[in-house]
Amino acid sequence: MKIDILTLFPEMFKGVFGSSILKRAIEKEIVDINCINIRDFSKDKHKKVDDYPFGGGPGMVIKPEPIYDAIESVKAADSRIIFLTPKGKVYNQSIANSLSKEKHLIFLCGHYEGVDNRIIENYVTDEISIGDYVLTGGELPAMVVIDSVVRLIPGVLGKEESFIEESHYDGLLEYPQYTRPREFKGHKVPEVLLSGNHKKIEEWRKYKALELTYIRRPDLLKNKKLTKEEEKLLKQIKEDMNKLL
Amino acid sequence: MKIDILTLFPEMFKGVFGSSILKRAIEKEIVDINCINIRDFSKDKHKKVDDYPFGGGPGMVIKPEPIYDAIESVKAADSRIIFLTPKGKVYNQSIANSLSKEKHLIFLCGHYEGVDNRIIENYVTDEISIGDYVLTGGELPAMVVIDSVVRLIPGVLGKEESFIEESHYDGLLEYPQYTRPREFKGHKVPEVLLSGNHKKIEEWRKYKALELTYIRRPDLLKNKKLTKEEEKLLKQIKEDMNKLL
Repeated sequence: MKIDILTLFPEMFKGVFGSSILKRAIEKEIVDINCINIRDFSKDKHKKVDDYPFGGGPGMVIKPEPIYDAIESVKAADSRIIFLTPKGKVYNQSIANSLSKEKHLIFLCGHYEGVDNRIIENYVTDEISIGDYVLTGGELPAMVVIDSVVRLIPGVLGKEESFIEESHYDGLLEYPQYTRPREFKGHKVPEVLLSGNHKKIEEWRKYKALELTYIRRPDLLKNKKLTKEEEKLLKQIKEDMNKLL
Repeated sequence: MKIDILTLFPEMFKGVFGSSILKRAIEKEIVDINCINIRDFSKDKHKKVDDYPFGGGPGMVIKPEPIYDAIESVKAADSRIIFLTPKGKVYNQSIANSLSKEKHLIFLCGHYEGVDNRIIENYVTDEISIGDYVLTGGELPAMVVIDSVVRLIPGVLGKEESFIEESHYDGLLEYPQYTRPREFKGHKVPEVLLSGNHKKIEEWRKYKALELTYIRRPDLLKNKKLTKEEEKLLKQIKEDMNKLL
């Protein structure tokens, strides 16, 4: 996969692409990531890229020409051109899956001030929001999307990591994990995990995952098709909770 | 505000903290940000921080001791200890607001494999998720939360920036922005913005913001108390849309 990032702050990306899974994917040549400075496409002698908004108001707006020229410098016939914006579609794992199958992603990082809307209307293919909060620019959202997409490309994660990945996909929050020591500052590991009884451990983990999801994110349960076993467990969880009240 | 980040990948943060608003806030000494390597608190001679999960299964779990010791090394009586996790409360602007009033934030970045649950149950004060997607670790979510929080601390944004900030807070998606040239590749700036009629411009912007929110994020409208003027405009938007059908 080829990834091009159009930004006014290319230096922000160095630490992130030099670490962890992304570093590995780049070294294995599974992804080729380039940061392109929008400012390099300014034809202004002071390398200015923004101007006052038509209609007045505070802030500046990034001009259409340098962004258009930056897009044109990398665009191919099958490129997805993604603009990171609070106005976009709320990002989730199924969008990550769909993007991971593309050949070429272009990320356009706006800055707080805004981008001329003609670019967004006419040249962008996807508008994505990573959540309902205000950030300084599109750079952090681009990193988030890239991390979540690249890890899904075959060959990036090892076999064991992929296995964990799948367990995150069944639509429930993950069960709690424990490791040594058995007792830490008076807090003990749940007995069942030390029992060696794999059937009981599996049941306990499923119960905990369902319980956590039911308490914290009931909205996730609505979107998930429960197996018969899960429905039975969920009924038991509700009964157990009623007993506690 | 003091911010301590507990992580296994401190080098990931350099580019982000060296740019833009965060750099400025650090230079103005409004925030003091430190990255602390959890590995420095390992008592193992190989600096190992993880171990196999009790009960079996793939992946490793970060041990409680080095995290506990890392927390203890920075913790004060009034510290909020935030763990970034898909199991957490879904982050939004109102949580950002609340965090921006704190004196000391500690961010615990887990890695994909997981963190011993006794740390989360007994020592963490807040569990936060930035969205429903799988990331490699808590580092990018920590950067996202820090960016959104620091910009809310008085003195970080300039006067004009703060003014823009407020306009983002009225619970609607932002109206489209345009700058010069008036015509770009055949795409024209909407006439009204060139009219000089400030009342009409304000009305058009409100209409556009409401329309965009109604089409893309009707869930945001449910949580917002509309003014009478906004209700009237929304009625008109619905009528205008019906006409188009």
